[in-house]
Amino acid sequence: MKHTSVRQFQDKPVGEEQLAAIIGAAQMASTSSNVQAYSVIAVTEPALKAQLSGLSGSQAYIEQCPVFLVWCADLYRLRETVKPHLQDAPSYEDTMENLVVATVDVALAAQNAAVAAESLGLGIVYIGGIRNNIAEVSELLGLPDLVYPVFGMCVGYPAGVNGLRPRLPLEAVLHHNGYDKEKTETQVAAYDKVSSEYMHKRTGGQNDTPWSVMMAKRLAEPTRLHMKEFLEGKGFMQR
Amino acid sequence: MKHTSVRQFQDKPVGEEQLAAIIGAAQMASTSSNVQAYSVIAVTEPALKAQLSGLSGSQAYIEQCPVFLVWCADLYRLRETVKPHLQDAPSYEDTMENLVVATVDVALAAQNAAVAAESLGLGIVYIGGIRNNIAEVSELLGLPDLVYPVFGMCVGYPAGVNGLRPRLPLEAVLHHNGYDKEKTETQVAAYDKVSSEYMHKRTGGQNDTPWSVMMAKRLAEPTRLHMKEFLEGKGFMQR
Repeated sequence: MKHTSVRQFQDKPVGEEQLAAIIGAAQMASTSSNVQAYSVIAVTEPALKAQLSGLSGSQAYIEQCPVFLVWCADLYRLRETVKPHLQDAPSYEDTMENLVVATVDVALAAQNAAVAAESLGLGIVYIGGIRNNIAEVSELLGLPDLVYPVFGMCVGYPAGVNGLRPRLPLEAVLHHNGYDKEKTETQVAAYDKVSSEYMHKRTGGQNDTPWSVMMAKRLAEPTRLHMKEFLEGKGFMQR
Repeated sequence: MKHTSVRQFQDKPVGEEQLAAIIGAAQMASTSSNVQAYSVIAVTEPALKAQLSGLSGSQAYIEQCPVFLVWCADLYRLRETVKPHLQDAPSYEDTMENLVVATVDVALAAQNAAVAAESLGLGIVYIGGIRNNIAEVSELLGLPDLVYPVFGMCVGYPAGVNGLRPRLPLEAVLHHNGYDKEKTETQVAAYDKVSSEYMHKRTGGQNDTPWSVMMAKRLAEPTRLHMKEFLEGKGFMQR
């Protein structure tokens, strides 16, 4: 309930034991039929972090954090695992279904890692920016076919704490026994008010753009239009 | 670290306050640029739970649990939200990128809900089976375009507890500064031994199939080949 993204980190390392505890918690998350279709790359080399930062919109905290985790959906390990047992059969890892499975698996694992890190006094921020130049990031990290970097995550000791960002009203996201389309407009209007007040306070009156306007700005300029072609090129969702 | 899927539930309701606490925790998970691109349907009507169970491979615990949560990736709310602000502009919610964003958003939220539920003494199990008949499930719940049910989740008081299922060795999923393909074979062989011993113990010697063989059986029979066409039909990943 106290989660807030951390974008400023102390110059203090995250130990091997802490990293093992964090990834160990990630591994205990649920996984579809125990496929465990994900891998995580812990990036600690300063030069590599700098390169990844440059490819992800030059977010300074990627360089500043002691450990940058790159969370990958991974069907490669699964394909390699079953090869000796399925010599004459076609392989079926390349379905849309398995892309969903692997993407969900890695997200569940990562969120357990986030909660574990925060419980150890660390802070995190997710980095969707690693999809800005997903092909270059994949090459830099030597990701094989059927592996794609879904998001990054900075981990470290917080050097500053932000206030909690208010979310949509509970009733906007929670429906009972069926999807209620009618309530969208009222719920969003209520949230526009709350989010505008929050922004006003946070920026000292410089900015009070409501949520719906910020979302409109975001949707008006589509990003990462390379994703479909990239995923198909990596062997995902052939059918 | 103590997570285990719960498939047997006590005949005891989950209160409104508990549900609000669980979904409130879900809402505090990270979300890509605050888009909050998910919705959750809490199913408590017995007849509806029975129908969903039938459509999801007749898993008895869907009927038995007091609350069945259907977690949906939701770009519909976003489109409705921005419509008034983008009257003359084309809309861009239908990209592959936004499908990834929404699928990750809902998974992060759901995993926070899982951890919150467990912290309240409840048990959960994820249900990928709702994708077996995803079109029928979507119709039954009245899901609009740009919304898809990613997975279900049974929530309730556990009537029995399973042992922890061992995961792949840490080093199988954790890489340092780059993906190490070489270690896959050794790590999987180590896990085959562990998983075979676990199965032997759990089934009283009836079954000691190693992980790689179970995965081969799973991949040899592709499931849910309707996913790509279904998602495209719902307006996702047009480009």
